[in-house]
Amino acid sequence: MTGKVYLVGAGPGDPELLTLKASRVLRNADVVLHDELIGHEILRMAPPHAQIDNVGKRCGDKHTSQEGINSAMVSLAQAGMQVVRLKGGDPSIFGRLSEEIAALREAHIEFEIVPGVSAALGAASVAQVSLTRRHISSAVVFVAGHLAAGSDPTNWSALVASGATLVVYMPGREYSLIAGQLSISGLSGETDCAIVSRATTPEEQVVWTNVGRLGEAPHLPAPTLLLIGNVLRPAAWPRLQQELSAGVRGFPIDPAVAVPMESPLQAADF
Amino acid sequence: MTGKVYLVGAGPGDPELLTLKASRVLRNADVVLHDELIGHEILRMAPPHAQIDNVGKRCGDKHTSQEGINSAMVSLAQAGMQVVRLKGGDPSIFGRLSEEIAALREAHIEFEIVPGVSAALGAASVAQVSLTRRHISSAVVFVAGHLAAGSDPTNWSALVASGATLVVYMPGREYSLIAGQLSISGLSGETDCAIVSRATTPEEQVVWTNVGRLGEAPHLPAPTLLLIGNVLRPAAWPRLQQELSAGVRGFPIDPAVAVPMESPLQAADF
Repeated sequence: MTGKVYLVGAGPGDPELLTLKASRVLRNADVVLHDELIGHEILRMAPPHAQIDNVGKRCGDKHTSQEGINSAMVSLAQAGMQVVRLKGGDPSIFGRLSEEIAALREAHIEFEIVPGVSAALGAASVAQVSLTRRHISSAVVFVAGHLAAGSDPTNWSALVASGATLVVYMPGREYSLIAGQLSISGLSGETDCAIVSRATTPEEQVVWTNVGRLGEAPHLPAPTLLLIGNVLRPAAWPRLQQELSAGVRGFPIDPAVAVPMESPLQAADF
Repeated sequence: MTGKVYLVGAGPGDPELLTLKASRVLRNADVVLHDELIGHEILRMAPPHAQIDNVGKRCGDKHTSQEGINSAMVSLAQAGMQVVRLKGGDPSIFGRLSEEIAALREAHIEFEIVPGVSAALGAASVAQVSLTRRHISSAVVFVAGHLAAGSDPTNWSALVASGATLVVYMPGREYSLIAGQLSISGLSGETDCAIVSRATTPEEQVVWTNVGRLGEAPHLPAPTLLLIGNVLRPAAWPRLQQELSAGVRGFPIDPAVAVPMESPLQAADF
């Protein structure tokens, strides 16, 4: 009997941010094909007999090609296995899900997508901000900082003109390139930014800055996300004050970089 | 001793799409203040002694004002309660999170945000599509169809110009209005759309159409989401064929509306 493939989002990092369903399908897995950044605590949810394969890639060093992943899923399911293809965040956001769906459909393999908490949502929870806000931002964009070769360049002008909150996945280390694109596109240098590193893990860090000073921001350990927009403003100041006075680890790394606000906000501004 | 407030995302509908953490904080709740569309199975995760209050609103009929919700959270926490403020999807996406954070900060109440699976991710999993795809869309926008009074109108032209996949939350019943905005903004009438109703529940339905025919689409039960973009194309056709031949419930409602594709795609196009 043919098995089934579950295309599963593992959430932003914290094992407790897996869904109940992701946890159930992991417990019933015969094989887990996982991306690089999935933590050990999550992989330990699979049963002892399960085969665990890291098919991820890091810094361009491919462990397994996309074609290799596709054919592994197909042949393992054809051998009757319950296959969990485990991806960071949510599978439908920057997860190469289309390619894997196409391969499974072509081979007539039954599959199911188990959505997860995308990295942006984990980062927002750590920074304690809302990504949308009445009267300020009625849209949010998730955009890739690193594009696949052959892709059209990102239309930063249109994204900026839309007024949406921006969340840049995989921003890379050269924040100044993104800051330059945003400035050329007319985004004010005063617009607030937060760089969130390893959100929802014990190593999480947030650095608050703004577009004008983004290029000077410290390089934080990957994975990082970059949040940009006026929705950040009301949240940043009080938390920052609180964290600075409490001396909480990781908030912020460098007060000189981390204090972008020119004045404290009143509660009425929120 | 003062209690704590958890601002928790309940996910897109399926109780199994709560995170492990959301399920844990619900099990330890003294009070649950929940939005309208949270299902009974989810609320039953709270302990028997917990007070369960529906503070949601439906069709403009406010159960509790935002100020009322804010002051309830504060006073219950001040009374030493563990308060769960339970929202559909993820709290940071169209969840009025900023207002609630501001009220909690002003009252010096400890709080924590527990992210959830946003409705768009649930809808994508049901439609079996990826919201981004290499070489086709390196960005996705979540935009509100219904805006708060006093908001700037949505800049549909900029969103269309960005080339991002669009996900419209709360699209309302007048799809022709949105279709008109998209067409005026230069989006091709051939661009694929999926309307997803009650995603990840037993009543889920998907209707496939395109921008040119969106105005003729049937009205599906709320909550619905509207997915728009070329990322939908490769996924729609094979599934549609599969579902039509299998006669699966809810896919699609009306084959005349649901078959927007002019030709089947080859696997090589994926």
